[in-house]
Amino acid sequence: MDNTDSKPVLYTYFRSSASARVRIALNLKGIDYEARPVNLAQGEQRSAEYAELNPSRLVPCLEIDGHRLTQSVAILEYLEETRKNCPLLPTDPLQRASVRAIVSAICCDTQPLQNLRVLLELPESERAEHARKVISQGLAVVEKMLEHTAGRFCVGDDVTLADCCLIPQLYNAHRFDVDFGALPRIKDIEKRASVLDAFHRAHWSQQPDCP
Amino acid sequence: MDNTDSKPVLYTYFRSSASARVRIALNLKGIDYEARPVNLAQGEQRSAEYAELNPSRLVPCLEIDGHRLTQSVAILEYLEETRKNCPLLPTDPLQRASVRAIVSAICCDTQPLQNLRVLLELPESERAEHARKVISQGLAVVEKMLEHTAGRFCVGDDVTLADCCLIPQLYNAHRFDVDFGALPRIKDIEKRASVLDAFHRAHWSQQPDCP
Repeated sequence: MDNTDSKPVLYTYFRSSASARVRIALNLKGIDYEARPVNLAQGEQRSAEYAELNPSRLVPCLEIDGHRLTQSVAILEYLEETRKNCPLLPTDPLQRASVRAIVSAICCDTQPLQNLRVLLELPESERAEHARKVISQGLAVVEKMLEHTAGRFCVGDDVTLADCCLIPQLYNAHRFDVDFGALPRIKDIEKRASVLDAFHRAHWSQQPDCP
Repeated sequence: MDNTDSKPVLYTYFRSSASARVRIALNLKGIDYEARPVNLAQGEQRSAEYAELNPSRLVPCLEIDGHRLTQSVAILEYLEETRKNCPLLPTDPLQRASVRAIVSAICCDTQPLQNLRVLLELPESERAEHARKVISQGLAVVEKMLEHTAGRFCVGDDVTLADCCLIPQLYNAHRFDVDFGALPRIKDIEKRASVLDAFHRAHWSQQPDCP
């Protein structure tokens, strides 16, 4: 943490969609980093050591530029403000608002209602159905928003922070068998992102802690 | 929506903490607006007319500069980018990341787990206890973050977007009898904000739709 030149360290979990948002942005911006897995399923985030690093006991947490940052959306905005290459926000304020509205539709209205912490509080038999329902509802809203904003990606033709958040939410959608029938725009964007190296390398299946 | 010079219109609900975030920012920046209440308790957000305005069927929704914006955090960032007076983000990227991390701790990790939509899915006898628990957990994390960031307000000595989000979350904390005993920094910030006119006028009790 003292050396501002050292390689960034990302505390991550392969299944964590919030971690994947940051993995994608780091890859897009060409920032080499060390992944330090925190096994959420085994409760490693609740250890005293990790709580010291990140009081929310969530991943991701990124050590970069001599500082420790938490919260995926705050990290994405920080990377965007400090690394000018591969811009992930448009320049027009209204388009930026469109990007951030999609980011919030996923990161505030969808993912928090289906994350591991919430699912573990439900009886095991209800978890998958709950996750499927909230992800379906969330993605239906995003699909509707994309009617007004999408080009080749969520907002216009370039990859933005909205795509960095949408694609990891789709990992969870597939995991819980969400029906993509009514989500044609989302499916198109997923297809376009899937061929990009930055998204491929951030996928859960490509992580060092993936069993 | 055609007239970029017309008075901004905020679709709001007096109890909605997400609406209050935007009401505070509009007041701080001196933007006069017309409040159009949407009665969430009576399900007005599910009407066809409102769904047309905002596919997420949530409040707030802000008509401004000839456009319609949704998602409170996206609206806050838009106001900050387009209105330079009364800046609500610091200039330093790390401090901006601190502000946004607190914003996310509230708007992603706390409020969505206790909003009306989630509470209505629980048996009535469990709602208050659920809300109290998730708000207590969320505010405990924020209190810990404030150890490193707070001055007179959440990040440093000036009001930021973090305060615009924290204070409305405290309305809900009081409503559900959260114990503030272990939240001294939050209590101090609440006291300082309570004497500011912009926060006072945004309070739920001051809204035209408050019964």
